[in-house]
Amino acid sequence: MARLSSNWLRVIEWLDVGEAFSREVKRIYFMEKTDFQSIAVLEVLPHGKVLIIDGKTQSALVDEWIYHEALVHPAMISHPEPRKVLILGGGEGATLREVLKHKTVKKVTMVDIDEKMIEIARKYLYEWHQGAFDDNRVNVVIEDGRRFLGESHSKYDVIIVDLTDPLKDSSSMHLYTKEFYELIYNALKDDGIFVTQSTQIALSVDVYAVIHSTISSIFPISRLYHTFVPSFLLDWSFNIGSKKYDPIALSGEEIDSRIRERIAGDLKFYDSETHKHMFSMPKHVRRALNSTKKISTDSEPIYLPI
Amino acid sequence: MARLSSNWLRVIEWLDVGEAFSREVKRIYFMEKTDFQSIAVLEVLPHGKVLIIDGKTQSALVDEWIYHEALVHPAMISHPEPRKVLILGGGEGATLREVLKHKTVKKVTMVDIDEKMIEIARKYLYEWHQGAFDDNRVNVVIEDGRRFLGESHSKYDVIIVDLTDPLKDSSSMHLYTKEFYELIYNALKDDGIFVTQSTQIALSVDVYAVIHSTISSIFPISRLYHTFVPSFLLDWSFNIGSKKYDPIALSGEEIDSRIRERIAGDLKFYDSETHKHMFSMPKHVRRALNSTKKISTDSEPIYLPI
Amino acid sequence: MARLSSNWLRVIEWLDVGEAFSREVKRIYFMEKTDFQSIAVLEVLPHGKVLIIDGKTQSALVDEWIYHEALVHPAMISHPEPRKVLILGGGEGATLREVLKHKTVKKVTMVDIDEKMIEIARKYLYEWHQGAFDDNRVNVVIEDGRRFLGESHSKYDVIIVDLTDPLKDSSSMHLYTKEFYELIYNALKDDGIFVTQSTQIALSVDVYAVIHSTISSIFPISRLYHTFVPSFLLDWSFNIGSKKYDPIALSGEEIDSRIRERIAGDLKFYDSETHKHMFSMPKHVRRALNSTKKISTDSEPIYLPI
Amino acid sequence: MARLSSNWLRVIEWLDVGEAFSREVKRIYFMEKTDFQSIAVLEVLPHGKVLIIDGKTQSALVDEWIYHEALVHPAMISHPEPRKVLILGGGEGATLREVLKHKTVKKVTMVDIDEKMIEIARKYLYEWHQGAFDDNRVNVVIEDGRRFLGESHSKYDVIIVDLTDPLKDSSSMHLYTKEFYELIYNALKDDGIFVTQSTQIALSVDVYAVIHSTISSIFPISRLYHTFVPSFLLDWSFNIGSKKYDPIALSGEEIDSRIRERIAGDLKFYDSETHKHMFSMPKHVRRALNSTKKISTDSEPIYLPI
Repeated sequence: MARLSSNWLRVIEWLDVGEAFSREVKRIYFMEKTDFQSIAVLEVLPHGKVLIIDGKTQSALVDEWIYHEALVHPAMISHPEPRKVLILGGGEGATLREVLKHKTVKKVTMVDIDEKMIEIARKYLYEWHQGAFDDNRVNVVIEDGRRFLGESHSKYDVIIVDLTDPLKDSSSMHLYTKEFYELIYNALKDDGIFVTQSTQIALSVDVYAVIHSTISSIFPISRLYHTFVPSFLLDWSFNIGSKKYDPIALSGEEIDSRIRERIAGDLKFYDSETHKHMFSMPKHVRRALNSTKKISTDSEPIYLPI
Repeated sequence: MARLSSNWLRVIEWLDVGEAFSREVKRIYFMEKTDFQSIAVLEVLPHGKVLIIDGKTQSALVDEWIYHEALVHPAMISHPEPRKVLILGGGEGATLREVLKHKTVKKVTMVDIDEKMIEIARKYLYEWHQGAFDDNRVNVVIEDGRRFLGESHSKYDVIIVDLTDPLKDSSSMHLYTKEFYELIYNALKDDGIFVTQSTQIALSVDVYAVIHSTISSIFPISRLYHTFVPSFLLDWSFNIGSKKYDPIALSGEEIDSRIRERIAGDLKFYDSETHKHMFSMPKHVRRALNSTKKISTDSEPIYLPI
Repeated sequence: MARLSSNWLRVIEWLDVGEAFSREVKRIYFMEKTDFQSIAVLEVLPHGKVLIIDGKTQSALVDEWIYHEALVHPAMISHPEPRKVLILGGGEGATLREVLKHKTVKKVTMVDIDEKMIEIARKYLYEWHQGAFDDNRVNVVIEDGRRFLGESHSKYDVIIVDLTDPLKDSSSMHLYTKEFYELIYNALKDDGIFVTQSTQIALSVDVYAVIHSTISSIFPISRLYHTFVPSFLLDWSFNIGSKKYDPIALSGEEIDSRIRERIAGDLKFYDSETHKHMFSMPKHVRRALNSTKKISTDSEPIYLPI
Repeated sequence: MARLSSNWLRVIEWLDVGEAFSREVKRIYFMEKTDFQSIAVLEVLPHGKVLIIDGKTQSALVDEWIYHEALVHPAMISHPEPRKVLILGGGEGATLREVLKHKTVKKVTMVDIDEKMIEIARKYLYEWHQGAFDDNRVNVVIEDGRRFLGESHSKYDVIIVDLTDPLKDSSSMHLYTKEFYELIYNALKDDGIFVTQSTQIALSVDVYAVIHSTISSIFPISRLYHTFVPSFLLDWSFNIGSKKYDPIALSGEEIDSRIRERIAGDLKFYDSETHKHMFSMPKHVRRALNSTKKISTDSEPIYLPI
């Protein structure tokens, strides 16, 4: 009976047409629809605590540090002195946590559309934010990220975009377009740098390449990088758009010395060798990047089929 | 996104070796381990609210009345004047609800081992018990049903056994044995009648036939009957053991007139034609019953493989 | 490894919105698309050999005799001397096998649209037809059943309709309509009787009731009956439309004596008590039948959502 | 119906405790048990043709070139002139195909225990081997790989081990031990180099690290490397054991010039940047490698739990 009872509830997540994975649910911490999304915090086998939004695993405690360190540190380390940072999305607070590790940072503005998401993170995801919301350098703004950019006149050193995937007909679909990246460009200082998660690197879908191409159309420096995230079962990509600093121009020594000088505490994932790993792309991925000229626009936005 | 988010959480339930069904979970009302079992109250597609114990669907709002009317009324109607009734198990309160519909009833004792189950029923399963726990004819006793029978000296007109299946190594495995049915026999008046759920009628498994054969070894009258329960996806069996009254000796007219005289309110499932349906067994089931001589005992109890 | 390898291929079958079952595949006998349908013969756990058409289990060796005896014998036995029989569909040959058991039968015409289906049955489903196709009373016609009826001028004692479900947009959708039943009516002798499978009895869907109501609009006698088919996990219905003979007017003695006199060999499922079981409907099903007035027509055919 | 019928057969594959993926089966090319393993060639969504052994996807047409180029070329390119090559396993013929692309190669011996596997590859996996079995430099030996090594006195430039995972109680479990690697060592020339697939890099399991540590105990140079294989949904590792040549000592220019000079035809995956990507390990993986001292031996072999 124990055997059976341990296997009767499962999460199913579609990865591609015809392809899904499933995991055993051990515990439900929270599950509810907000005005913007359906949010669940569960414990699953084999990954432990996970955050699932609209049926898609956003991060798992067991490896959220891979995703969040990969998202935050390459852009932050590439900048010689990031003082003012803007985060769009990132409701769990883990992106914020990683940004705050940089001693150079004086002020972080975090904009999330869903106040309820922040509440849920505060209540159920302490392991993610580790109190970051209460750091006095932080200002949390509840607003639509795109509208915030449109109305704000601040200029940032670093902007980090940590949003859900551009699924068809989802609200995120217009946060991966040329017009959106122009707003980002304008909100950056003259030597500013930005990074966005840019979806999985799949053989069948070129969304990551279109995001790369779109960012390349706005920023002089556009760099795709990637790493495997075990709980996603996917090779995940990120894309830096930069006005001045090029992440691949940094030497390994420079990366490691910046980490040593600047970061309070230990990183589990990122260092110079990880940087080299992430910024080296297999030949077929480079070929796909080179052959993709398509640009995502508000009128014809790129989206994921599933 | 809505489409996807509506299909990411599923219950899986094994029906037989290699065979399972799964249903979409829309909402979690409650999910917790008590000292005795793991209890969940969920909303699923297509059946709405369901009670799941140890990973097995116990009843669904959409058709719990089929199961509970089928369990309760044939024995109650077969008795000319059931006044004192004992229910073992039946934590949802729906068996109790059906018993209380009989105006003849003066006193119902309900014995459940799991106090927490009753609390959960009171809080989350109002549609099942409909306030039955608060009827002043009712006495709820929190105790092991078998121990209660062993220590009690009361005699009942009707005893209704509404327990989980005799799964291998489960606590219910010893509540379908000859020794248990002797305790039941002794707790009945000289014209007393008892009924128990007796598991699915499967082609591959003869547990229902062994339960029938075991009851036949104690009671002069032993009648298996059955009906399809949609949310179980199975043909479900029940078995009456009776000292005097034979359910198949009742005419259709007698059944319907007893219902009219005795029952407050309307039944949705049970009447004389339903009775005829349930007590007529397909030929192959009769053959299986006739060829099964095995008796379940405390030392060699019958059990379900899954 | 053996353990794993035994569980890596599964059939999934949708029963209702949000609800599916799955079974382990042990062996593939055959799997191909014909011009009309996708046909697979597999061995699955726990049911052994099964025929699956368009992803729906049509029959399983372990209990095909329940379905086919239930489909064939009530109509055949209700007729005092069925000599000339028409079968529409029934490609496995098991309906034919049951019809041929009646010594009264002189001639059976079987019409199936899919020649390939008959070939597959001959090659892979011997346990179903048991050589019935080679009986010299049998004439197999490869044609669309509805067109056959429209063009034929023969008159039959019994017509048996054994077709796939009226799924949305499927070719079977127009084989459960008033216009189709008029063709059947016209192809029957003055005392002819017909029967069709009439889909599952579900709480959520009233297709069986609409089929009943549609047949009632054409035939003076219309009787729904049902039985649980384990490999379908469903309570399955059938509907007789009759010009003269009423299956519920037959006494149990009459049924059993007709079986004894007329049937060569043994039946495993059907006899008078099984007949009583099948023609007695639970109260809520009768209520649904009585409240359904809708009629399926060629212009507005009834169909199953899944 | 088309929609439904296209989704009724699925492969399920367990990745970890509680975690599985499933894919839609479109076509069965072949499925049978040989004396050694259960082999299936299927077409699945979204990956097309796949080879599945004992319920585990071995390779998919869509990305087998990632796996096979990653397995073969780093060791082959690290060697200045690989002439004589031994392949253990690799029944699909794709490892052989990649080896034969090197113009330096004079002779390849391929040892596979399962003659039937080679036949199946010849018949159903032409896209994998592309006729490689018929190259006159190739000698296929049907024998147990370990016994072959024990009995052979030949010396090779390169040995490539392309076997199924060391699952618990599987025959492959003893092909990842110290004693096996000693046999490999002895079958290599003084400047020989060998490579083996070394299972997924998971957070929960350290099998890859134990394989690395075991190879390090025999070879002066031991290098783990890795890449994401989309159809595996995993980050896959390989390990080189080398007597003299160190793959990470090669410059990018050297790698690309050796490819240009030596390889007939185009590579889709491997070049100097891919090499850099594969041989750079994220920090947490290096930490796991450094902290794992365990060695797999014949008496206590390491194995995967699932």
